[in-house]
Amino acid sequence: MTEVTSWPGTGQEPAACVRSITDDLLQRVEQRLSSFLSAERARYAEVDERAVVAVDALSDLVAAGGKRIRPAFCITGHLAAGGDPGDPGIVAAAAGLEMLHVSALVHDDVLDDSGRRRGKPTVHTVFSQRHQSRGWQGESRRFGEGVAILVGDLALVYSDELVSQAPPALLAQWHRLRSDVTIGQYLDIAAAAEFSVDPRLSRLIALIKTGRYTIHRPLVMGASAAGRPDLAAAFAAYGEAVGEAFQLRDDLLDAFGDAAQTGKPAGLDFRRHKMTLLLGWAMQRDERIRCLITQGGHSPDEVRRRLLDTGVPEHVEKHIAGLVERGCAALADAPVAPVWRHELTDMAVRGAYRNT
Amino acid sequence: MTEVTSWPGTGQEPAACVRSITDDLLQRVEQRLSSFLSAERARYAEVDERAVVAVDALSDLVAAGGKRIRPAFCITGHLAAGGDPGDPGIVAAAAGLEMLHVSALVHDDVLDDSGRRRGKPTVHTVFSQRHQSRGWQGESRRFGEGVAILVGDLALVYSDELVSQAPPALLAQWHRLRSDVTIGQYLDIAAAAEFSVDPRLSRLIALIKTGRYTIHRPLVMGASAAGRPDLAAAFAAYGEAVGEAFQLRDDLLDAFGDAAQTGKPAGLDFRRHKMTLLLGWAMQRDERIRCLITQGGHSPDEVRRRLLDTGVPEHVEKHIAGLVERGCAALADAPVAPVWRHELTDMAVRGAYRNT
Repeated sequence: MTEVTSWPGTGQEPAACVRSITDDLLQRVEQRLSSFLSAERARYAEVDERAVVAVDALSDLVAAGGKRIRPAFCITGHLAAGGDPGDPGIVAAAAGLEMLHVSALVHDDVLDDSGRRRGKPTVHTVFSQRHQSRGWQGESRRFGEGVAILVGDLALVYSDELVSQAPPALLAQWHRLRSDVTIGQYLDIAAAAEFSVDPRLSRLIALIKTGRYTIHRPLVMGASAAGRPDLAAAFAAYGEAVGEAFQLRDDLLDAFGDAAQTGKPAGLDFRRHKMTLLLGWAMQRDERIRCLITQGGHSPDEVRRRLLDTGVPEHVEKHIAGLVERGCAALADAPVAPVWRHELTDMAVRGAYRNT
Repeated sequence: MTEVTSWPGTGQEPAACVRSITDDLLQRVEQRLSSFLSAERARYAEVDERAVVAVDALSDLVAAGGKRIRPAFCITGHLAAGGDPGDPGIVAAAAGLEMLHVSALVHDDVLDDSGRRRGKPTVHTVFSQRHQSRGWQGESRRFGEGVAILVGDLALVYSDELVSQAPPALLAQWHRLRSDVTIGQYLDIAAAAEFSVDPRLSRLIALIKTGRYTIHRPLVMGASAAGRPDLAAAFAAYGEAVGEAFQLRDDLLDAFGDAAQTGKPAGLDFRRHKMTLLLGWAMQRDERIRCLITQGGHSPDEVRRRLLDTGVPEHVEKHIAGLVERGCAALADAPVAPVWRHELTDMAVRGAYRNT
């Protein structure tokens, strides 16, 4: 990992300046999200007091935090490609990516029946409980999940309204990103339902849901907005490798992480029979893991113990380091200023070694 | 109703010609939908055999029929505004409206737990049953509804990809249409859950979900694409009145219609405690209906019988006729060729007097 962290900053702009430009743009993304949602709230408040409920649920989730990884990659791709930091279109695109992610989270939490997200109760849980406590008509679960479907739909619609204010050159990537992530989600729940013990499928899902959705396509959207589609191949190679590292970290945090830090309960993937990238990887490397998983009926604790016994966490750490190195190496010959190459390396390292 | 059906066709183009132009464009909308979905299927077939499942579910629903009311209003708005019939952008916009509607139907069927749509089992029903019959992991209901959430999301994403190929002048209407219908759906399920006995809210929901979503905004989208936003006010007045007529017909068909013709079971709204426009209207006019509804615990059959006893169907028919007349009169002074005014009148009559 030494090359990765000591990448020489030989660009004209010092790294601190790069960070300050991206931080400033990310701040503008927050403002865009919040001004957009405030305007929508004001519009619907005039219609009926109930009409703002879905907008408020969305605003709460946006305000509850999140890592803003996709906006950060979109902005970095734009700036690395020489894009104008003052372009309001890139702020709109980055805000749209975050809004899309919020939509995916709200729907995903229904798909997975997750209780907590960003440290708070999930939308469907809040509205199911409200329905129950107020003794409303019909089934509480259906009402709560129904509201979550609509809140996610609203975020999906809003994501598009935001991105329509960005340069049209990025639309092709945007459309691919959105349909890909939906298909990736389907593959994910289908693989879990069928209990598909297929490491190839796990890798495919990770590639679609993390490599492309989180890294590669946001980067290419940013570069396209700057008129630099030529960076697509390098960003694809970087995104594929770094995305796999991010996903493995995600799986490790789910399996062994601290719920207080991640804002969601640990061990969920195992309980849901998800064939995570981590499990697929471990099964390919170790016959004992393969046996445990394929015979079925195992508890999350058994899986966790077996992974620890067979030294999987340490091996995965090495694999993650290799992926980060490979991803960053893919940028070596890309026509990008060294300071941005350095920044992208930093982002890879921060994501691959995050603890929340 | 005499003025309505005998509206003089004084334009240069005979009505038959108008119908043939719109039919031709609607045919092109079908082709656009089917070529779009085929291309998406081909793309995802290369990824994984499972990756086409959501696209296929969508294609099945598009192919299962539907009245294509929104595409028809969009095209008619375009042509009435003097738009070019050969513009591929208007075909894309109309196809996007239908795709959006398919998304709304798939999600709506989960919200309402409907079993049938367009004469076939609903998406969530099909996938819940598939999950159950194959003995897959997890809960069948969650899987089926999860797939339906994703299929609806995919249609929502595709709707936007289609509309992005239309003239940008219609985007503002498109964004409003999409967020409005989502908020309208929320109001609908919230009113049903709270069992809100509020005719004002019923009218508001009908205005948002039918007047604006089905008629007014598709017409204005078409007119905007033709560079004629000046028609917006006339189309809004037409859409508001005719939409109310359409919604009352919808409610009548739900209450008294033939399930074999409508493709969905009758009496669903009553069973779901929906405060339909019909019920709100009947409650405002007749104290006996108000008593039955507000005291609660009534069966669909009781409601139906009470509506018949108090002569509601006949009164509503008169009200529908008045609405159609009012809507069409709103076009009297609009700068639209008489032959298109005639066509819009015909469309109002066909929708308000449909039997499916």
